[in-house]
Amino acid sequence: MISSTTNIRVRYAETDKMGIVYHTNYFVWFEMCRVEMLDNIGLSYRDLESRGYLLPVLDISASYKKSAHFDDRLTVTCFIDEPPTLRINISYEVRRSDELLVTGSSRHAFMSPEGRPLKPPKDIIQHFETYFPR
Amino acid sequence: MISSTTNIRVRYAETDKMGIVYHTNYFVWFEMCRVEMLDNIGLSYRDLESRGYLLPVLDISASYKKSAHFDDRLTVTCFIDEPPTLRINISYEVRRSDELLVTGSSRHAFMSPEGRPLKPPKDIIQHFETYFPR
Amino acid sequence: MISSTTNIRVRYAETDKMGIVYHTNYFVWFEMCRVEMLDNIGLSYRDLESRGYLLPVLDISASYKKSAHFDDRLTVTCFIDEPPTLRINISYEVRRSDELLVTGSSRHAFMSPEGRPLKPPKDIIQHFETYFPR
Amino acid sequence: MISSTTNIRVRYAETDKMGIVYHTNYFVWFEMCRVEMLDNIGLSYRDLESRGYLLPVLDISASYKKSAHFDDRLTVTCFIDEPPTLRINISYEVRRSDELLVTGSSRHAFMSPEGRPLKPPKDIIQHFETYFPR
Repeated sequence: MISSTTNIRVRYAETDKMGIVYHTNYFVWFEMCRVEMLDNIGLSYRDLESRGYLLPVLDISASYKKSAHFDDRLTVTCFIDEPPTLRINISYEVRRSDELLVTGSSRHAFMSPEGRPLKPPKDIIQHFETYFPR
Repeated sequence: MISSTTNIRVRYAETDKMGIVYHTNYFVWFEMCRVEMLDNIGLSYRDLESRGYLLPVLDISASYKKSAHFDDRLTVTCFIDEPPTLRINISYEVRRSDELLVTGSSRHAFMSPEGRPLKPPKDIIQHFETYFPR
Repeated sequence: MISSTTNIRVRYAETDKMGIVYHTNYFVWFEMCRVEMLDNIGLSYRDLESRGYLLPVLDISASYKKSAHFDDRLTVTCFIDEPPTLRINISYEVRRSDELLVTGSSRHAFMSPEGRPLKPPKDIIQHFETYFPR
Repeated sequence: MISSTTNIRVRYAETDKMGIVYHTNYFVWFEMCRVEMLDNIGLSYRDLESRGYLLPVLDISASYKKSAHFDDRLTVTCFIDEPPTLRINISYEVRRSDELLVTGSSRHAFMSPEGRPLKPPKDIIQHFETYFPR
């Protein structure tokens, strides 16, 4: 399994008139966690893109259990449970200390800058596999 | 069934460095469609909130089939397929003319401004029911 | 003078925990007004970009006099007071019926997709000039 | 003088189709810097709000000299040059290591949650003054 945790401090801009975090911001935090998770295993999403591999979202979802507020300190943890093949599946948990606020998941595929589906680059897949010993 | 269609012209601010619409913006458009759908059946979301009833998102998801671009004219259609009870389930389709770009769904419950779960207001539920003749 | 008016209905996503429109959203609306103003004089910003001419913001400012709220219907009016040369200066007014809420201004220059400053395309400048008869 | 520096890592969501940071995001970063600057002098913006004092933006501006990109590490520095009275004036500088990318300024006043202008709370003003010895 690969996992990584990102620390978030809620921005004023991320609240809405309910006084809580507007629901779409969690998806932005999911993405920050994805980027840091790749960093942690020695892959830079920026480099991946300069090699011509984009990783757009195919599906995404979230379940909201509790609200977060302005200035809250949160942790976003993301997980890859199985070695990526054509698709990369990622799950997410957002917490305020040990309270679970939001869970989610996303699915990704490799795409060219022109929007064409791409086979995953071999070296990337092999690199991922080293994290899933048989 | 209740349904409603909202017209969108993609804003520059809604794009990202892939040159396409950033994936969270579809959720904002879903919300615009919800608000207009309520309008169309004579309910104002603004009024509902001033009566003390918020309708936060419990779960939300989207599947991305094709990309949208800056300045595209899109339609977002939202549907309520069954009379709301404790929960309101809504589904969504985003199209560029007849190309289906994105589908989604969301689930909502009534909440007080202090974040307490509320029973749905009786008049609202009765109003919804008139759209689902037996 | 060239001017144009864009109609806005405030989105829920555009509010913050003060219960009013978050201040940066006015800049997004300014941009929508710029795009529609170009449309109105027969220039498409999308086409301009595909010809390799971007129009990034050099300077921007806003003064906030009154707040706007969720679901408000607003008008954004933008003005070009003098024929553009190397720079394009635009001013803005946001109103709720006849109440003036926000004023602003922005300055733009032509740039290549690689970020290099460009001379304004001749045909565009000439086109602008027809709106400023001597 | 009071000043404070906030570290930013550019989020994917903060880019636009030019491939650079969308111009309104700098204003969000300005706000993060304001909040951390208040922290650093022992004032919590969250607490200020729970005491009934909001600090909305009256005027704001930015000048864009160079672009920032996805994943860039930036510093935002904000300054209060003179003791706040009825208004608080703040200036900003955004840098990528020692390259100056963006400068800006904002002006704020105290407001009640109902939108009424308020005199600044005496203890806050006195606290600010300790940072400006005569």
